[in-house]
Parts: sequence; C-alpha cells; structure tokens
Amino acid sequence: MTYCVAALVEDGIVFASDSRTNAGVDQIATFSKMNIFERPAERVLVLLTAGNLATTQGVTSLLRQRAEQGILAARSLFDAATLVGETLREVVSRDGAALQQDKIDFGCNFIFGGQLKGEPPRLFHVYPQGNFIEAGRDTPYLQIGETKYGKPIIDRVVRFDSGLKDVAKCLLVSFDSTMRSNLSVGLPIDLLCYEKDALRVTRRRRFAEGDAYFREISQLWSAGLRRVFAEVPDVTWG
Amino acid sequence: MTYCVAALVEDGIVFASDSRTNAGVDQIATFSKMNIFERPAERVLVLLTAGNLATTQGVTSLLRQRAEQGILAARSLFDAATLVGETLREVVSRDGAALQQDKIDFGCNFIFGGQLKGEPPRLFHVYPQGNFIEAGRDTPYLQIGETKYGKPIIDRVVRFDSGLKDVAKCLLVSFDSTMRSNLSVGLPIDLLCYEKDALRVTRRRRFAEGDAYFREISQLWSAGLRRVFAEVPDVTWG
Repeated sequence: MTYCVAALVEDGIVFASDSRTNAGVDQIATFSKMNIFERPAERVLVLLTAGNLATTQGVTSLLRQRAEQGILAARSLFDAATLVGETLREVVSRDGAALQQDKIDFGCNFIFGGQLKGEPPRLFHVYPQGNFIEAGRDTPYLQIGETKYGKPIIDRVVRFDSGLKDVAKCLLVSFDSTMRSNLSVGLPIDLLCYEKDALRVTRRRRFAEGDAYFREISQLWSAGLRRVFAEVPDVTWG
Repeated sequence: MTYCVAALVEDGIVFASDSRTNAGVDQIATFSKMNIFERPAERVLVLLTAGNLATTQGVTSLLRQRAEQGILAARSLFDAATLVGETLREVVSRDGAALQQDKIDFGCNFIFGGQLKGEPPRLFHVYPQGNFIEAGRDTPYLQIGETKYGKPIIDRVVRFDSGLKDVAKCLLVSFDSTMRSNLSVGLPIDLLCYEKDALRVTRRRRFAEGDAYFREISQLWSAGLRRVFAEVPDVTWG
C-alpha cells in the first residue's frame, strides 16, 4: 500500500508521500514515491505515485527519459498532466494484457502538480485510466492510496486559505494517523513544500525512522488527543 | 453504507451503530441496525448489521421469528453466533442466485455479542460467508461497514482495561469522525452499554439529529483538535 497527499493553497502546494511498497507481507521494500522535475526559474513539477510498482516506475522512467521534449517542454501544467496520463496509458497498453492474464492488479494513481512560469500553481489527480481532475478552492487537497485513516484531520484543518506551515504540519499528522492504523504505510516520509512563484524547490525534507521531529509530533499529537478526550464529558444515560 | 462498532472490555461491552442506508445517493433511508434479544436475568444478545438491507433484514427476521427455539435457547454465545452464521447462509442460498444474476452485492457483516448467564461477555464478527471470529484481550474491538475514518481514535484509546464510560465516549467520537468524512453514515446513532453480569439492558440511548450531547462532543472534539494542532511545533526545514 501507499499513502500520498498534496494540498493546493493560496501560498503554494505541499506534497507528502510514504516510501513503503509491498507485494504480500513478506515482500516489503522502500521506494520513494516522490518524483521531481525541476528547471529552476521556469518550472517545478512533482509526481506522487501509488499502485503497481512496475507500472509507476515504467511511467516515471519514460517521463524522465523523454523529459526534455516532454514534461519539461510542456506549455502548461494541464499539458504536462495530459502527458502523464498518456504515458500511463502507453505502459498499461504494453504490460496490461500479460498482467491481466495472471490476474495482477496493475492499476495506479498519480498526484501531479507544481507551477510553470506564467501560470498559478496547479494540482491534479491522474486516474488509472489516464484521465484526471484538478484541485481547486473548494477541494484543495487530493489523496491516493490508503486515504481514509488520514482524511479526518485534513478535513478539519486544511482550507484554501490555510498557511503552508499549517498544511505541512497537518499532512504529517495525517501520516501519523495512517501509519498507526495501517502497517503497509511506512517511513520514510518525503515532504515538499512548494512556495508559490519560487519556481524552484526550496523546502524539502525526508522523515526517516527515528526522526526526532516526527517522533515529537507523533507523541504530542497522541498526548493532546488523550487530553482533549478526557475533557469531553461522559455520556449521560438519562 | 453503514458504520457499526463494538468493544469488549473488562466491565462489559459497548455497541454502537448508525442508521443510514442507501441504494445510490437518491435513495437514502433510516433503519436501525441494532437488534436486541433479551431475556432478563438470563441473557442479552445484540446484533449489529452492515450490508445489503434485504439480506440483513431477512436474517434478523428469521432469528426473531425462531428466537424461542433459536438464539434465546442457545446454550452458549458461541452456539448463538453459529446460528447467526447459519441463518445468514440460509438467506444467501435462498436469494443469492437471483441477486448475483443482476450483479447486486448481497453480502453482509454482523457484529454479535452479549452475555449468557454462566459465561463471560463475548463478542463476535460474523463474516458474509457465515463463519466468524471472536474479540479478545489483544483485539477488544470489532468494526463493520465504513470502518477506517473512525479507527485511529479507537486505536489510541480503547484497551481491554478501559472503563465503559471512556469506551462509550470514544465510540461516539469515532462516529463523529466517520460522519464528517463519509456522507453515507448518518444519525441517529444507537448506543448500548452492556454492564458485565447485568444480564439485562440497562443503558441504551439514541442520538438523533440535533441531540445536544452529540453536538457538544462534536464541537468540543473539533475545538480540542484544533488547539492541540496549534500546539504542535511547525516543521523545520533545516
């Protein structure tokens, strides 16, 4: 499994992804699911991937191999997202039949976003079929993979006018909740905070096993929830 | 969709279920999913249901119709759970073929628990195939339906040695999180707190639309989460 989430707000976009992949419980490995395509002062594109690892790696490898004429040359983020979708369709049409024969689920989902000079930051969810939707003011965040455990806190905190600091913190808390309830989502977490109009990657951090900050928010959050819980009045039975 | 949860602790069992059913977004209705079979001073049995409404109603109607010779006569909670599973298989074998033909998902899950005189309280999850598992000290709670949004708070709070008051409160908070993230789970919530060795229903309450207590915990929880969130330090980018 996987958990990836990104939120588009007034001041930029925050991206976060875990790094655990598994094909059964006895085949667990670590792969980053955050792919960055950057041409400083011109564009920053971030691709988060969930689903069949061979498929997602196939797509990212092709995108990287063809980047100069491909997503680094695309004239808008919409065109770049279209290219991601088309590349996914290409990989699926190449590998799909063989995998389907063995009943292997080869589907995958992408979160794709960033900014091109001359455009505002934009954020997309590319579906297994290659089509996609774009986040907006009303629904500023997108999730793929194991999305449910970490959704309640985002629903409570993230708005389009939330500050980047709060959003970054919130996505980490969302990961903490997810990792407590689902073993197949695991550290390291890759976090990237893209500041609107920076047109380069300025804030990026990896939270690995034993990371002091991540342990601290995990403990503070846990202790805080217990405190709030204790303050809520007991049920009266009338 | 549906959300039902029950937790077996040292002092008894707390059961909670929502009341929303839907067959598509334009066919939403209210049905209680909590069924109680009681013979005061001898046994209390509670059945929570999730899944295809015709199937779950078929099972509960047959169980009730045959209760005197059936689950009210069963010699143990294990035997009663076996009867629930058998009745489910009977309904599925009667209706399954016709439903399968029209590709209708007729599966359902049950949480079934309570106490018979001479036994400790026991709690089971009956699967769509009619087999079942029993909760225990290590995993004291069971969920069916839309389980994920409400799981993190239970994972943090409920232990086998938790008090009934805390468990009742926690299950309500778990419902609050679920209802915020999934529209297909809705009020009223039926809550039943069975006190070990009572052998009768003593604490039962329904939280309907506008219930003052439920609104209060919902607001306090929301405000508390925001407060704790504000206390967690911001991410440092190094």
